[in-house]
Amino acid sequence: MVVKVFGPDCGNPKRVLVCLIEKGVEFETVPLDLFKGENRAPEFLKLQPFGSVPVIQDGDYTLFESRAIARYYAEKYKHQGTDLLGRTIEERGLVEQWLEVEAQSYNPPINDLARKIVVGPLRGLTPDPKLIKENEEKLGKVLDVYEERLSKSKYLAGDFFSLADLSHLPMTQYLVGKMEKEYLIRDRKNVSAWWNDMSSRPSWKKVVELWPGLY
Amino acid sequence: MVVKVFGPDCGNPKRVLVCLIEKGVEFETVPLDLFKGENRAPEFLKLQPFGSVPVIQDGDYTLFESRAIARYYAEKYKHQGTDLLGRTIEERGLVEQWLEVEAQSYNPPINDLARKIVVGPLRGLTPDPKLIKENEEKLGKVLDVYEERLSKSKYLAGDFFSLADLSHLPMTQYLVGKMEKEYLIRDRKNVSAWWNDMSSRPSWKKVVELWPGLY
Repeated sequence: MVVKVFGPDCGNPKRVLVCLIEKGVEFETVPLDLFKGENRAPEFLKLQPFGSVPVIQDGDYTLFESRAIARYYAEKYKHQGTDLLGRTIEERGLVEQWLEVEAQSYNPPINDLARKIVVGPLRGLTPDPKLIKENEEKLGKVLDVYEERLSKSKYLAGDFFSLADLSHLPMTQYLVGKMEKEYLIRDRKNVSAWWNDMSSRPSWKKVVELWPGLY
Repeated sequence: MVVKVFGPDCGNPKRVLVCLIEKGVEFETVPLDLFKGENRAPEFLKLQPFGSVPVIQDGDYTLFESRAIARYYAEKYKHQGTDLLGRTIEERGLVEQWLEVEAQSYNPPINDLARKIVVGPLRGLTPDPKLIKENEEKLGKVLDVYEERLSKSKYLAGDFFSLADLSHLPMTQYLVGKMEKEYLIRDRKNVSAWWNDMSSRPSWKKVVELWPGLY
């Protein structure tokens, strides 16, 4: 049974795509045009009542929320492809800790920056330099903690690439690309080495090549 | 070895406390006064570099982020106390899905409301009725999805109480209590039954009794 991934061409679905590639799980993508409101169509709302992407269908099993989907495949195929959860319950705990930091502290200021720098101007809005500066500073503080952490271990949860690192890929790509804020990464030696390492993985290069998409 | 929980008297730490009680894990609490900035002290920042609560210390293992800690104990003591993760990988997937909904969609508008309704006035700020209304509407839309979901199963991830439900306890208590927004729960039949059921659990009653705290 081939896994169906709905809505591939933006950040959150790419978290799922790169995970499936790392795990060697066969999948197909089902594009959804958010600008045309296809995510608000009644058929789609039956799969995802909030109208968000991604959603997966795997036989008669449906799941949404990108980090929940990534955890599901990392666990279902624990012994296939890259192990993304750590070898022990304690390592898994640290993977979950940094996955939560990504979701709660890293992602929100990037999302806010994206809205102000890229999406706003597309809709004719003038970016507010004060709000941009505030979010850059907020993100910078998070990256300072990462810089210190990555001076002690190669990846966030330890010396192994995990779901915690993987989960940073889509929005960091956006940050250093279309948002033109590469300096936030480049000016931090350990963060920069971490980003160069994980963005060079064949799985991520494939996602960027096949789905250049919105970001 | 008794688990130490730092910073019990606010919402996120209570997510950990109720989980530990459900799992029958012995613990002690280490109070931190956030208003005095004890969470910014160098010793504390060694445990939690962002200066947030909760943090746990379990022997020489340290972990932060409330939902990561809750997952860790739910997995470590899988066969002790209440099973909070589901019986299969598919059930765990649904637990993770609704746990993400709580973290990403339910919690943020309640946090915003808390800042505007309770914390702001404590600091002498006048609440902005427009912003309060916007967040109430945002939260109402999430609760509409819950109402529909809970018409099909007793709890969010299925017919079993899980980490996904448990994770809603602290902020919902705050919402119906100090924030005086009980109508958002009461006016929805299934959400109301769900809240009455889970807030009556001995574990939660114990948390409310022992740590009435800030909220």
